[in-house]
Amino acid sequence: MSTTTVTSKEKAFSEVIRERRSVRAYDPNFTISKEEMTELLGEAILAPSSSNLQPWRFLVIDDQQMKEKLLPIAWNQQQVVEASAVIAVLGDLESYKLADKIYTRAFEAGYMPEDTKNAFVERTVKTYGSLPKDIATRIVSTDGGLISMQLMLAAKARGYDTVPMGGYDAVKFAEAFGIGERYVPIMLIAIGKAAKPGHPTVRLTVDEVASWNEFTN
Amino acid sequence: MSTTTVTSKEKAFSEVIRERRSVRAYDPNFTISKEEMTELLGEAILAPSSSNLQPWRFLVIDDQQMKEKLLPIAWNQQQVVEASAVIAVLGDLESYKLADKIYTRAFEAGYMPEDTKNAFVERTVKTYGSLPKDIATRIVSTDGGLISMQLMLAAKARGYDTVPMGGYDAVKFAEAFGIGERYVPIMLIAIGKAAKPGHPTVRLTVDEVASWNEFTN
Repeated sequence: MSTTTVTSKEKAFSEVIRERRSVRAYDPNFTISKEEMTELLGEAILAPSSSNLQPWRFLVIDDQQMKEKLLPIAWNQQQVVEASAVIAVLGDLESYKLADKIYTRAFEAGYMPEDTKNAFVERTVKTYGSLPKDIATRIVSTDGGLISMQLMLAAKARGYDTVPMGGYDAVKFAEAFGIGERYVPIMLIAIGKAAKPGHPTVRLTVDEVASWNEFTN
Repeated sequence: MSTTTVTSKEKAFSEVIRERRSVRAYDPNFTISKEEMTELLGEAILAPSSSNLQPWRFLVIDDQQMKEKLLPIAWNQQQVVEASAVIAVLGDLESYKLADKIYTRAFEAGYMPEDTKNAFVERTVKTYGSLPKDIATRIVSTDGGLISMQLMLAAKARGYDTVPMGGYDAVKFAEAFGIGERYVPIMLIAIGKAAKPGHPTVRLTVDEVASWNEFTN
């Protein structure tokens, strides 16, 4: 069995998922550089998405004045101003417009032949371009969940803590930060250095949420 | 800096996210025991969810006859019958009905005082019980994305591969497997031992999907 030595910077996967907890108290003096935030987002975006359209968009709010602007919109939750940053995860309802860019890049990397690329782009634009808004919203919400989970875990692996926040006024948020109707706010994620550990929480058991071959819930 | 030695069973987090790829060719003779699947789901459900309501439900389809039944519903994608299992991730639109059970368990574990528990349950039932269906669907879609990502990563950490599948007839799926209107199919995840590695895929760059303090997409 091959072994790898991991340092505290490179945590074992099983530790990361067990140590991640929602943290609401942050060291207000701790900052995360744009370089490191870029690395972290670069890990998060390795997540999969529907037809690889990668509809996630991020607005990283790490300027103190902008955090203050967000504070009342997020119902005065202190982590908004005390965390190093709040990352707004948004879903692009028109990500099919990037299909050509994405698949052309895959073709250029040698991952697919040109005619496959052309067929993919045509089919994707046709299918996604004609989706009813509620279906498109569901897809970007699910893809937004995928990326958010990988982002929170990647943060924990780097020694940071996070809290996913659904409690904010999405309409006011979109207005205040100039986010057009093309983009659906999925969640806010506060990230930083914990000042107090997160509370433990309970879970339903696997038996309570899973069934085998026949649905019994 | 403290170090931990990880074996191939206990992979480093950064390896897991880099090695995870969508795999569509599986060893049809490889099985995953119910015990190990239960352990894997137990890791996945450490994910966070909106108000900790844990709306995820899983239907693990590992019986060959049931996989055959699913095959045409999932447009004859061979991984449905060749993977060890297909896990249907569902979202419970009425998970607030479990608020009392969940928060009572948190109270009994000593994580919150009784009056906090009572206030949480009352507020949660009131808020979630009166949500329009499209909003409830968005919430379970996002939470379903969170759990699906953690599930796929936990599978990879154990040496398995996965592929998230949105391409199936959700209506026929619900009919064929007796899934009532209370539950929204989020995605199918095939899981097993790869027979062929997944294709590499491309990503938009961080610069293309992220902006700082001012939304520029």
